[in-house]
Amino acid sequence: MKRRLYMKEEKAIVVFSGGQDSTTCLFWAKERFKEVETVTFDYGQRHKLEIECATEIAKKLDVKHHILDMSLLHQLAPNALTREDIEISEGNEDNLPNTFVPGRNLLFLSFAGILAKQVGAKHLVTGVSETDYSGYPDCRDNFIQSLNLSLNLAMDEDMTIHTPLMWLDKKQVWELSDELGVLEIIREETLTCYNGIKSDGCGECPACKLRNNGLRQYLDSKGEK
Amino acid sequence: MKRRLYMKEEKAIVVFSGGQDSTTCLFWAKERFKEVETVTFDYGQRHKLEIECATEIAKKLDVKHHILDMSLLHQLAPNALTREDIEISEGNEDNLPNTFVPGRNLLFLSFAGILAKQVGAKHLVTGVSETDYSGYPDCRDNFIQSLNLSLNLAMDEDMTIHTPLMWLDKKQVWELSDELGVLEIIREETLTCYNGIKSDGCGECPACKLRNNGLRQYLDSKGEK
Repeated sequence: MKRRLYMKEEKAIVVFSGGQDSTTCLFWAKERFKEVETVTFDYGQRHKLEIECATEIAKKLDVKHHILDMSLLHQLAPNALTREDIEISEGNEDNLPNTFVPGRNLLFLSFAGILAKQVGAKHLVTGVSETDYSGYPDCRDNFIQSLNLSLNLAMDEDMTIHTPLMWLDKKQVWELSDELGVLEIIREETLTCYNGIKSDGCGECPACKLRNNGLRQYLDSKGEK
Repeated sequence: MKRRLYMKEEKAIVVFSGGQDSTTCLFWAKERFKEVETVTFDYGQRHKLEIECATEIAKKLDVKHHILDMSLLHQLAPNALTREDIEISEGNEDNLPNTFVPGRNLLFLSFAGILAKQVGAKHLVTGVSETDYSGYPDCRDNFIQSLNLSLNLAMDEDMTIHTPLMWLDKKQVWELSDELGVLEIIREETLTCYNGIKSDGCGECPACKLRNNGLRQYLDSKGEK
């Protein structure tokens, strides 16, 4: 059964990385809003391929695709601040330096909110989730609600942040894409794999395992019905 | 009578432009906190001279001065987005294009909050005010309170945003600097003038008029006592 709520006169911005989650959100938004635009944040991450992938998908779906350069983020990374009181790790499992910036999603969503205002969109859609994910505090529902208020107060606006995946696990995200009639497209076209392999990916990295386990669980449960 | 509240074990970040307001906040913070650092946002504004001025003051006071490049902000300016639905003015009284970005202070304070977390500061100090000012929504007290919560939720933190000037008019800001024993320093060393002239400035631009009227009012009221 499709759960559709049309808001045909309204415009939305989807925070879009080209991965499974945000692409599901993009299709979700396209069903609901008269006009949809996407925004991708480029901060020189290892997911450069993800950005190419996002660009391709946006092109295919004929939605406007804003790419915002967020390299400024690196100014806030521990190694850029060169403080003795910050411990800098030599590398994590990917052999990358510890350059993670807390509150990153706060910045991304703030930029997205301002972009929304500038292009006349009353809706922001983001694929953040509390379930099955890493537990970054700025992906949690209470933060999103607070930021929604902050954005509106900051700009005298009446905007809504939508988080269609907030309470879904990976199996349920696949289920949602099936309800939207786009499971196969999402399976084929999106990139989640840490090793940069589209579709079902390398199958070995944590992102592939999470994605593929969810898919298997969903297809199994569907076969059982 | 000096209203001092010492928090000697705590560290604060002051959002600092080199103008009268933020310099008053810097002295206010230096009285209260064990350690104070400053942050200035460089977004290529006409106040380049203000940044030099801020650097000089920070040097004299021997406080660490972070300068964050915020040129990415221009990506959100109307002319960068090239949307037909945004009206672009040809220029304002300074003959500059209409590149003002709403919610700018939301971004600045978010960056400052993340910087604070990265350097171990529990306090943020900003000179925003509801009084005598232009009425940008992201300078109002309700926004600051909301952002304070959003910042803490975003980073699992326990930070406080201080706004010592929120309810003061220009006369009272001068009074505060006098209470702090730094009225003359602020009068001599800070830059408020749109024409880039330090101290009492050109005397003609709106910023000079506001500043100088406040000073005259304060000095008059002091003389009367």
